[in-house]
Amino acid sequence: MTARAIRIIGFDPGLRRTGWGIVESDGVRLVYVASGVITPPKDDDLAYRLSALFDAVTSVIQSFSPSEAAVEETFVNENPRSTLKLGQARGAILLAPARLGLRVAEYTPNLIKKSVTGTGHAEKQQIQAMISFLLPKATFDSADEADALAIAITHAHHRSSRQRLATVAAKVAGT
Amino acid sequence: MTARAIRIIGFDPGLRRTGWGIVESDGVRLVYVASGVITPPKDDDLAYRLSALFDAVTSVIQSFSPSEAAVEETFVNENPRSTLKLGQARGAILLAPARLGLRVAEYTPNLIKKSVTGTGHAEKQQIQAMISFLLPKATFDSADEADALAIAITHAHHRSSRQRLATVAAKVAGT
Repeated sequence: MTARAIRIIGFDPGLRRTGWGIVESDGVRLVYVASGVITPPKDDDLAYRLSALFDAVTSVIQSFSPSEAAVEETFVNENPRSTLKLGQARGAILLAPARLGLRVAEYTPNLIKKSVTGTGHAEKQQIQAMISFLLPKATFDSADEADALAIAITHAHHRSSRQRLATVAAKVAGT
Repeated sequence: MTARAIRIIGFDPGLRRTGWGIVESDGVRLVYVASGVITPPKDDDLAYRLSALFDAVTSVIQSFSPSEAAVEETFVNENPRSTLKLGQARGAILLAPARLGLRVAEYTPNLIKKSVTGTGHAEKQQIQAMISFLLPKATFDSADEADALAIAITHAHHRSSRQRLATVAAKVAGT
């Protein structure tokens, strides 16, 4: 990777399981860096489970020094209790990069699926297959890791198209 | 207040407005300490709004040194987006006391209403009137502050009844 490569961390949030995945992108090529799953202790108080999740996310960011972060912008429709739990986990996860000075982008599930597979209605297996294709060196054991890598890839695509637009705009403005 | 008095902070969580209220209790008497409302900046990224909320909660706890915390155990039924937002704010608020070593208790809205007014179906105005009665020195401008004080009072009642049970159990065990 060139000196202009950027390291991105993606998160697939959950109170029981939070997937994380890190890629490097120079705007053209993508390289797998690392991925994993955080599983906070189950039987502790909610506040302490959130604290354990926050600590683990902070520790991953400090270990791999990504410079940008991305999470899925999602909500659960069926069960308000599950939605609230997901929100709480999401709150703890968003806080960690923000407190380390990273900007945190959010992408809808449809945009993530479309960015990785070309269709907004892809199945879990299609996403995993595309992640293995796009990041041949990636090793992941779970859908949570694959989803987190998909989120990081989505951000890699969208931040570089935003950059290209900004460059074009600057050139047009300069002519 | 005696040396055995405990200082409790209650939170009424929200991303736009978070009420907080602090009381001291020696198991019999209640004394108002302070209360207020935290309003994070509206136009920033979600992660930075949560970070501002976390900082403000941390700062209040550090200023007044409560030793226990309590929040409402609630969820929004109607709108999953609102529930997710509330969850995210709640995650940031629960984290702050947990990271400062405070245990965080949770109480249902019905139990809070019942603890303060005697009925689980009290209106906002009834709660505010009872807070003014129970804490004559309290000054609060909003329902969020009154609700936060109600949550702190609920914890004061329930922790002391738990303590009394423990004392009785110890005496019975000792006879």
